Amino acid sequence: MVASALLPELWTEILVPVCAVVGILFSLFQWYVVSRVKLTSDLGASSSAGKNGHEDYLIEEEEGVNDQSVVAKCAEIQTAISEGATSFLFTEYKYVGVFMIFFAGVIFVFLGSVEGFSTENKACTYDAKRVCKPALATAAFSTIAFVLGAVTSVLSGFLGMKIATYANARTTLEARKGVGKAFIVAFRSGAVMGFLLAASGLLVLYITINVFKIYYGDDWEGLFEAITGYGLGGSSMALFGRVGGGIYTKAADVGADLVGKIERNIPEDDPRNPAVIADNVGDNVGDIAGMGSDLFGSYAEASCAALVVASISSFGNNHDFTAMCYPLLISSMGILVCLITTLFATDFFEIKVVKEIEPALKNQLIISTVIMTVGIAIVSWVGLPSSFTIFNFGAQKVVKNWQLFLCVCVGLWAGLIIGFVTEYYTSNAYSPVQDVADSCRTGAATNVIFGLALGYKSVIIPIFAIAISIFVSFSFAAMYGVAVAALGMLSTIATGLAIDAYGPISDNAGGIAEMAGMSHRIRERTDALDAAGNTTAAIGKGFAIGSAALVSLALFGAFVSRAGIHTVDVLTPKVIIGLLVGAMLPYWFSAMTMKSVGSAALKMVEEVRRQFNTIPGLMEGTAKPDYATCVKISTDASIKEMIPPGCLVMLTPLIVGFFFGVETLSGVLAGSLVSGVQIAISASNTGGAWDNAKKYIEAGVSEHAKSLGPKGSEPHKAAVIGDTIGDPLKDTSGPSLNILIKLMAVESLVFAPFFATHGGILFKYL
Amino acid sequence: MVASALLPELWTEILVPVCAVVGILFSLFQWYVVSRVKLTSDLGASSSAGKNGHEDYLIEEEEGVNDQSVVAKCAEIQTAISEGATSFLFTEYKYVGVFMIFFAGVIFVFLGSVEGFSTENKACTYDAKRVCKPALATAAFSTIAFVLGAVTSVLSGFLGMKIATYANARTTLEARKGVGKAFIVAFRSGAVMGFLLAASGLLVLYITINVFKIYYGDDWEGLFEAITGYGLGGSSMALFGRVGGGIYTKAADVGADLVGKIERNIPEDDPRNPAVIADNVGDNVGDIAGMGSDLFGSYAEASCAALVVASISSFGNNHDFTAMCYPLLISSMGILVCLITTLFATDFFEIKVVKEIEPALKNQLIISTVIMTVGIAIVSWVGLPSSFTIFNFGAQKVVKNWQLFLCVCVGLWAGLIIGFVTEYYTSNAYSPVQDVADSCRTGAATNVIFGLALGYKSVIIPIFAIAISIFVSFSFAAMYGVAVAALGMLSTIATGLAIDAYGPISDNAGGIAEMAGMSHRIRERTDALDAAGNTTAAIGKGFAIGSAALVSLALFGAFVSRAGIHTVDVLTPKVIIGLLVGAMLPYWFSAMTMKSVGSAALKMVEEVRRQFNTIPGLMEGTAKPDYATCVKISTDASIKEMIPPGCLVMLTPLIVGFFFGVETLSGVLAGSLVSGVQIAISASNTGGAWDNAKKYIEAGVSEHAKSLGPKGSEPHKAAVIGDTIGDPLKDTSGPSLNILIKLMAVESLVFAPFFATHGGILFKYL
Repeated sequence: MVASALLPELWTEILVPVCAVVGILFSLFQWYVVSRVKLTSDLGASSSAGKNGHEDYLIEEEEGVNDQSVVAKCAEIQTAISEGATSFLFTEYKYVGVFMIFFAGVIFVFLGSVEGFSTENKACTYDAKRVCKPALATAAFSTIAFVLGAVTSVLSGFLGMKIATYANARTTLEARKGVGKAFIVAFRSGAVMGFLLAASGLLVLYITINVFKIYYGDDWEGLFEAITGYGLGGSSMALFGRVGGGIYTKAADVGADLVGKIERNIPEDDPRNPAVIADNVGDNVGDIAGMGSDLFGSYAEASCAALVVASISSFGNNHDFTAMCYPLLISSMGILVCLITTLFATDFFEIKVVKEIEPALKNQLIISTVIMTVGIAIVSWVGLPSSFTIFNFGAQKVVKNWQLFLCVCVGLWAGLIIGFVTEYYTSNAYSPVQDVADSCRTGAATNVIFGLALGYKSVIIPIFAIAISIFVSFSFAAMYGVAVAALGMLSTIATGLAIDAYGPISDNAGGIAEMAGMSHRIRERTDALDAAGNTTAAIGKGFAIGSAALVSLALFGAFVSRAGIHTVDVLTPKVIIGLLVGAMLPYWFSAMTMKSVGSAALKMVEEVRRQFNTIPGLMEGTAKPDYATCVKISTDASIKEMIPPGCLVMLTPLIVGFFFGVETLSGVLAGSLVSGVQIAISASNTGGAWDNAKKYIEAGVSEHAKSLGPKGSEPHKAAVIGDTIGDPLKDTSGPSLNILIKLMAVESLVFAPFFATHGGILFKYL
Repeated sequence: MVASALLPELWTEILVPVCAVVGILFSLFQWYVVSRVKLTSDLGASSSAGKNGHEDYLIEEEEGVNDQSVVAKCAEIQTAISEGATSFLFTEYKYVGVFMIFFAGVIFVFLGSVEGFSTENKACTYDAKRVCKPALATAAFSTIAFVLGAVTSVLSGFLGMKIATYANARTTLEARKGVGKAFIVAFRSGAVMGFLLAASGLLVLYITINVFKIYYGDDWEGLFEAITGYGLGGSSMALFGRVGGGIYTKAADVGADLVGKIERNIPEDDPRNPAVIADNVGDNVGDIAGMGSDLFGSYAEASCAALVVASISSFGNNHDFTAMCYPLLISSMGILVCLITTLFATDFFEIKVVKEIEPALKNQLIISTVIMTVGIAIVSWVGLPSSFTIFNFGAQKVVKNWQLFLCVCVGLWAGLIIGFVTEYYTSNAYSPVQDVADSCRTGAATNVIFGLALGYKSVIIPIFAIAISIFVSFSFAAMYGVAVAALGMLSTIATGLAIDAYGPISDNAGGIAEMAGMSHRIRERTDALDAAGNTTAAIGKGFAIGSAALVSLALFGAFVSRAGIHTVDVLTPKVIIGLLVGAMLPYWFSAMTMKSVGSAALKMVEEVRRQFNTIPGLMEGTAKPDYATCVKISTDASIKEMIPPGCLVMLTPLIVGFFFGVETLSGVLAGSLVSGVQIAISASNTGGAWDNAKKYIEAGVSEHAKSLGPKGSEPHKAAVIGDTIGDPLKDTSGPSLNILIKLMAVESLVFAPFFATHGGILFKYL
């Protein structure tokens, strides 16, 4: 008998929900602080909030322009953006809802059919001496968990969008007082989303486990098998959110830029551009709601992967609840660590000048990683027995608690390395982006060649970081190690999401300033916030893809165990063809999403051109454009276009598993994992680099940058072309790919019992 | 005891060299026919050659411009191109020669060290009851085979270049008589190269086997292990040829286009452009010499992979020489089949109008595939016993001769399918390229987005074709099946190379017509030839990558067997990290080569701009540009830049095998295979599509195309940008990738005994 953890079960039962509630309360507090910036013309309340000891002069007052109508205008624009986003998300959820109901049915029927819908208890899969609940129960509970995961994911995305559209105009208004004030509003709003999502994800999972336990009792194998449905639900919603939102945002963005910036030579976010509201809506539904769902999915899947392996290891076999909850304890600790980290940005230090923004965000990553390392040590010490066994493809492997500590740490620190490398390749403070900007001298073609090469090159170090994490965690604790390494990378998710959501909020704030006709200086400040946001967005995508690689490997390993195969030998025909076809899927998927963005953007371009040509006085600013038609074009296009790539991802595991069997499906999962991770990283970084190369030329801070500019110069035009190409790469196809690899893995795991029983019919009858 | 083949050993010994010699004679005959087009001002000889029953009027005569000096001018330009190409290749070979000598030393020392340089005979690896030659002998003979392969590869590339630069001006001159005449000259010249390469590759391999046999006697295991050096030699030269030539040609092309077409608005190949000679030289050193070496490498490696597996199967164990030579018999049959196929293009039918060109080339593929199917049936019937055993990772698998027939056929027909799909995605006769052209309406950005999406999409069917070939051949006859499937795809290599080499020859012919100031109608004809050539070039690349995938899988399998491991389990830490890092290598490699092209092109742009700005009268055509400096820039840049990517590919297997061991190396090989094949296909097709989208707008054949044109319109400018971006994708990084995957596999195989003995030191001591 192995010893159990130091922390008593009761404490675990209390600590996990307490941490989650603390996270939610902290999130609400941040919201309250943000809400003190009033969106009404009465400015008294917010001026008196100046607690930093110096007086807050509004720029308008300094310049003698005290136009109260600007506040009303901001509020009006914010409402338009918020309504557009809400309406799109509701339309999206309507379609996705139908799909979800259908898919819930598929899960129930397929999993129920494993034992012919029998209601009898049966021998457990991994331990034939024990008695487990029937497959029908697992089918029912998996379906419930799937729905819960899907609903939580939808709520995460939706609330994130609501917060972002609540915060954007407030950021604009605060920018009148200074860049530091605006930064804090944007960052706090990001934190609202980050903490709400991390905490509610944890809380729902925790409650679900405890409720399911009432039925399952001692059958933890069945319990945690059913729980995997939670990951599948979260991730499949994320897929549609990312793809639909991604197409929406980039169709609007590319369409607006192609006519506005390139043909009509009007600035970005100019209110004369008919697609400008759609563009700003897009930031919220794509970058905010999509990303929220995505990271929630990663978190849910990493937890499920760890739990399902733990349930058949000594933790589950000995019913050591505290050790079983190790993944949840890490997430709980992560919420506390992120809470402290946030204070460093909002309360301990104050940003006064533009150049402090990027370091402040970077410090968030470093601080959270350092503190979390201590946090993991504590959790590993009190939450784990000193020695235990982990299921390793048929055998039990002895693992020490310090080894598991190292597994989590290696994931955590690999995330930081990926973050820094991403920053190096996408921030215009370093030579790679500057080289890309420089190549604009000879036109768009060299810009694209250098940008693509940069993206390819930026893959090298992250892949080595991921490979080392896998090697260490896999060697120490097999698939459980890989799963907790992923959780380590995601443990600071609240901070990661905060700095990630900060980007689109700043972007929107700039758009609102432009549309409300505010002073040039306000726009400069929001642009500075936004440039830092581009880099943090790329870092966030780096985290998302790095963790997705680890998560899907862990899920893949769990799938293989559950499907009853012991090796996945590349040198067998079934596996190698799976590997080859799997490696092709990210290309197929990218072809679909990029072409969708292209086609939708073409439609948008035609509409914007039509409005410029047919609405008299539009260019002169005397007539208002028809924003609603552009919003509708983006909505319709993205709903229609998200279906084929969505089906590709959702149906591939089902088709391959059912017709070709689990060996080929294993190959497909491995192939899509190793291929998809590369394309995702390179696409995100190429796009981020092009965007910041353009901003580098526009800002003209250095001598070198000035020699390439100003706006409207030939190099700048070349840079704009690169930026436009990068849009679908970095915001549609790239970030959707990590969902592709995770989702196929979790879906395979959920359906593993079905495939093991009924799969591979093509080879059976050939 | 298994029965032996119908064909007696003596007949095999006679038939293989006879077929090779027939191929060489046929090649010489084609050269003789081409040489009858005189590059002197006496036109009598070639006019009287009109045997088609109708009179040959020269355009110049029709138009009353009978300027004999144009012939002298063509000859002069040809000489300049030929000299530039020769000088570059000699410089390249000098550097590569040093590397080869060094690497030959590495092979000898590493392989010799396996048994501590002992000269004693030892027990065989696969059959401990037999006695085999010492490792030192294998080291020595491998080194010799390596040098032979390298020299044959160099000669293939060099002779190809010589033929192409001999034929280009002749094609231009024949274009005066009609498009059909020009087509035949270009095609015959391509055939010279195709047959010379296929036949000499076969002959050298055949002679080498027979000479080595004198020493090895009955030790076929050792004999064919040593022969694999031939594949390594061929492939490593091909790497430097492809990369060096690819950087050369695209630096010149991109540099010439960026200043000439985009900035100065002068046509392509205008003699005023200083980079124009370098550009034309590039076609010959990159597309001709590089591709020749590449396909020779594929052929050599596929043969070696098949032979090495056969030597430890019943063929080798029973010393059935005819069955052992099955791969060589297929190639011999291939030469005869291609010979007949060629007659369909040159003698049986005659091309009269432009639109017949593409079908004529396509028919070559279909005819050769259909006849070859019969040819394979004959070879399989007489060259194989009805039943035999094939080595399958430690066991012997019983295989029937009809199964092997199917293996070869599935490869052959998969090649045809890949060819057709490539044509569909890159020819401007079909909707994909037309859609890309249409997207130029909204500028370069949408053109690039649509082009990238097209490339990604074009991967799908080829991957399924390759996957099916692998599945069928692997299931029937393990790695031997995969190797002969690759040989099946390459069996019509002579025809494939002929239509492939035809492209750059036509391209050069157009350049010469422009530079010699010939009539507009001549240029139109050569442009039509060239447009078909772009598609055939893409088809050729499709074949190259498809066969490379099969070849490297076969080599990989042989490596695994030789390295003494029985499974390559994805779910072990060593393999999965190898897989992940291996999948990253093509990105790293592409980043290097693309950035090299970009940097070299920037240098070229500066030089071309400098000349336009400082040489008075250059734009007016009164002063001559300094061609030599541009040639030198391309030469220096490509020599310097080919070294890092070359080292990456050559050193990776050595480093991984030595430090991390054979399991991780297996992962790396599998990862780079499944990832590289996708990037290679998509890069080639994207580039080809952009090139032909531009040509589609320029040619303006349909109403749709006219609405996008003419040259100089905004959509055309956008198309030129796409074309320029596509240049390094389709001619440098894309086609080099198939060498990357093959070369790493063959290198691993050659060094397998060394890795098995001394490899993996990092894990041994950790």
